[in-house]
Amino acid sequence: MEIKAYVANMVEAARTASASIRRASSAQKDEVLDRMAQNILDARDHLKEENVKDLEAARKAGLSGAMLDRLELTDKRINGMAEAIRKVVALPDPVGRVIDGWVRPNGLKVDRVRVPLGVVCMIYESRPNVTADAASLCAKSGNAVILRGGKEAINSNMAIHRQFVAACEGSAIDPRTVQMVDTPDRAVVTELLRADGYIDVVIPRGGKGLIRTVVETSTISVIKHYEGVCHTYVDKTADIDMAVAICQNAKCQRPGVCNAMETLLVHQDIADEFFQKMLPVFQKEGVELRGCETCCRMAPGIKKATSEDWTTEYLDLILSVRVVRDLDEAVDHVNRFGSGHSEAIVTEDFRNAQRFLDEVDSATVFVNTSTRFDDGEQLGLGAEIGISTDKLHARGPMGLEELTTYKWRIIGDGQLRT
Amino acid sequence: MEIKAYVANMVEAARTASASIRRASSAQKDEVLDRMAQNILDARDHLKEENVKDLEAARKAGLSGAMLDRLELTDKRINGMAEAIRKVVALPDPVGRVIDGWVRPNGLKVDRVRVPLGVVCMIYESRPNVTADAASLCAKSGNAVILRGGKEAINSNMAIHRQFVAACEGSAIDPRTVQMVDTPDRAVVTELLRADGYIDVVIPRGGKGLIRTVVETSTISVIKHYEGVCHTYVDKTADIDMAVAICQNAKCQRPGVCNAMETLLVHQDIADEFFQKMLPVFQKEGVELRGCETCCRMAPGIKKATSEDWTTEYLDLILSVRVVRDLDEAVDHVNRFGSGHSEAIVTEDFRNAQRFLDEVDSATVFVNTSTRFDDGEQLGLGAEIGISTDKLHARGPMGLEELTTYKWRIIGDGQLRT
Repeated sequence: MEIKAYVANMVEAARTASASIRRASSAQKDEVLDRMAQNILDARDHLKEENVKDLEAARKAGLSGAMLDRLELTDKRINGMAEAIRKVVALPDPVGRVIDGWVRPNGLKVDRVRVPLGVVCMIYESRPNVTADAASLCAKSGNAVILRGGKEAINSNMAIHRQFVAACEGSAIDPRTVQMVDTPDRAVVTELLRADGYIDVVIPRGGKGLIRTVVETSTISVIKHYEGVCHTYVDKTADIDMAVAICQNAKCQRPGVCNAMETLLVHQDIADEFFQKMLPVFQKEGVELRGCETCCRMAPGIKKATSEDWTTEYLDLILSVRVVRDLDEAVDHVNRFGSGHSEAIVTEDFRNAQRFLDEVDSATVFVNTSTRFDDGEQLGLGAEIGISTDKLHARGPMGLEELTTYKWRIIGDGQLRT
Repeated sequence: MEIKAYVANMVEAARTASASIRRASSAQKDEVLDRMAQNILDARDHLKEENVKDLEAARKAGLSGAMLDRLELTDKRINGMAEAIRKVVALPDPVGRVIDGWVRPNGLKVDRVRVPLGVVCMIYESRPNVTADAASLCAKSGNAVILRGGKEAINSNMAIHRQFVAACEGSAIDPRTVQMVDTPDRAVVTELLRADGYIDVVIPRGGKGLIRTVVETSTISVIKHYEGVCHTYVDKTADIDMAVAICQNAKCQRPGVCNAMETLLVHQDIADEFFQKMLPVFQKEGVELRGCETCCRMAPGIKKATSEDWTTEYLDLILSVRVVRDLDEAVDHVNRFGSGHSEAIVTEDFRNAQRFLDEVDSATVFVNTSTRFDDGEQLGLGAEIGISTDKLHARGPMGLEELTTYKWRIIGDGQLRT
């Protein structure tokens, strides 16, 4: 009952804040977000202190290296959070943008205009910068948001959230525009997921288990951010040096994130030459390889992949490798075992590049570059609220515009339907 | 187990058909749909025979007048179905349309291109023309669709579906692109709603009970088409003759549909004059009025509205009427009691028109015209698959484009993330 009241208060406050933030001007929203960015920089020491509490607890709890990496707030990441917020400030406000419009033969004037979704609920794990991204993107796009971060990051998240609240002081923006659940009690999540009529969309970010639970519990629309089992396919005609650099980047630059490569596919005709340059690089980077039969024959000493490896998101310095007969086999592999997230081809062949772009059914497809670019900021959306593996509403990186809906406006002069 | 196998076959066939229809050319799709339209006209007598079976059963089962109206296939409606399909044929194919694109500072070329959703599942009631609309819109937009119409329309629906199957003969289009559930067993629906991984989106159309059940059962994304508790607000400065004509049209032209007016709001300063012209019209049309206290005082003999009336979708010649103090009270009423579907203002005042457009939080807002225009065909989308009361993905009338998603394409030349 206490939980019910806690959530009821929270969603009621969110609705109230939503009615106010949806009409706030861009200037008012930008001013508060700009202050939030400055507050984050000014509160650097406080943020790191709170983050250390989380890191110590996480180490004691035995979290993996990838998880600890996600959790840590370094100076660079604190700067990055503030920068990301300022990039959001600099972006045009999507609210009020006219999508399209026309006049009907009977003279009715029709248009569609972007309006905020209303109240967003974000449920996430680990990475504290999600708190800053979600707060700034939701507020800028005129939404209220309820944040429920991972319990392992609770001190870091609360510290970041305080910078938003402080930024609202003396402004027209309701500080309850961004609310943070301050208890790890899971019953709160269950209640939130049943608050339809109050919450317009739920965006979970985290492991498969979390997302499955959210989907099965929620009576509210969910935009899912499932795992990234991302592939790079090195085609027969690939520039080998480019392919080596791209694969190194996709696997090793930051292995703990969803757009890192998890499976490498190599055309059989280029495999030998490619492995000669690629394998020493992976060895130096400390990447554990798990190969198909052909791969293990070509490069003895590589561990054999099990069928489970092809569908595993390692989030670590582990990579499954398969030698394929041709592009068809590569596309089939990706569409069968992939998670529809990010896939790349390295090729010099125009037709194969086009076929890969057309036939791979994933949110983002790449030619001659690294899957690590699948990120709202990298692709030009400012910060991102996540990378959707759903097909509805938003697919791939979700930025400001994906946090709005639209409204139809019809202007008449007495027209009647016959 | 039999049901499980039935659904497993169906969704498996849908996936196969989806892989083929997603790559079909516009010309191939248009040819089949054009033939389907012709088949519907040619099979007119057959359609009416099958429809009579449904109508007789419905009468025996004691269905309401509005339900019988929705179910009936008249010559005019058969012509309308064929015309609607031909309008879909004439529309540009949304698949392959580039939404936007840009080049990043590092030279990465980014764009987003429309692709089909995959497999759609439509669950609906009563109106057989939904079968033709859903088949043509889904096929044209490159999707496979599983149709589950109301059991009261099963003979009509099967007869329409046969016209699609026949149209596929000798073409490149898989007839399983459009499949129809041919049993009224509800267990089939439950199985379909759990077929995630096979079905990409569920679109229910029908009563609140149906939609609630779908939302609560489905683990697949749902685009809801809840009821339309639609309002018309006659402002102080309204042109009274225009207001009378618009209200007559909105309430009486076809009361059994979701965009018909259910509540009339009238500014207190104009109520007397307006009622003098309006009430005789409603009386002549046989509309039963349920008024607020003021309304009942002004027009004795009107039945008093209960609080339930303000949230009721009558779908019949019944109308709730409330006299309001001003625009603010009208907007509050709409946002509190409405279903977010379609609302109109009749006014000569520029500022009030703008405020109504801005402040009413509904899918479609109208100035000086009838809510009956809230329809994909009327607003220029060709046919429509429904009118979404959701805010995600599609809001208001859903046409072809709303049956697609998009894919990000990134073209590089060896770029690496640093």
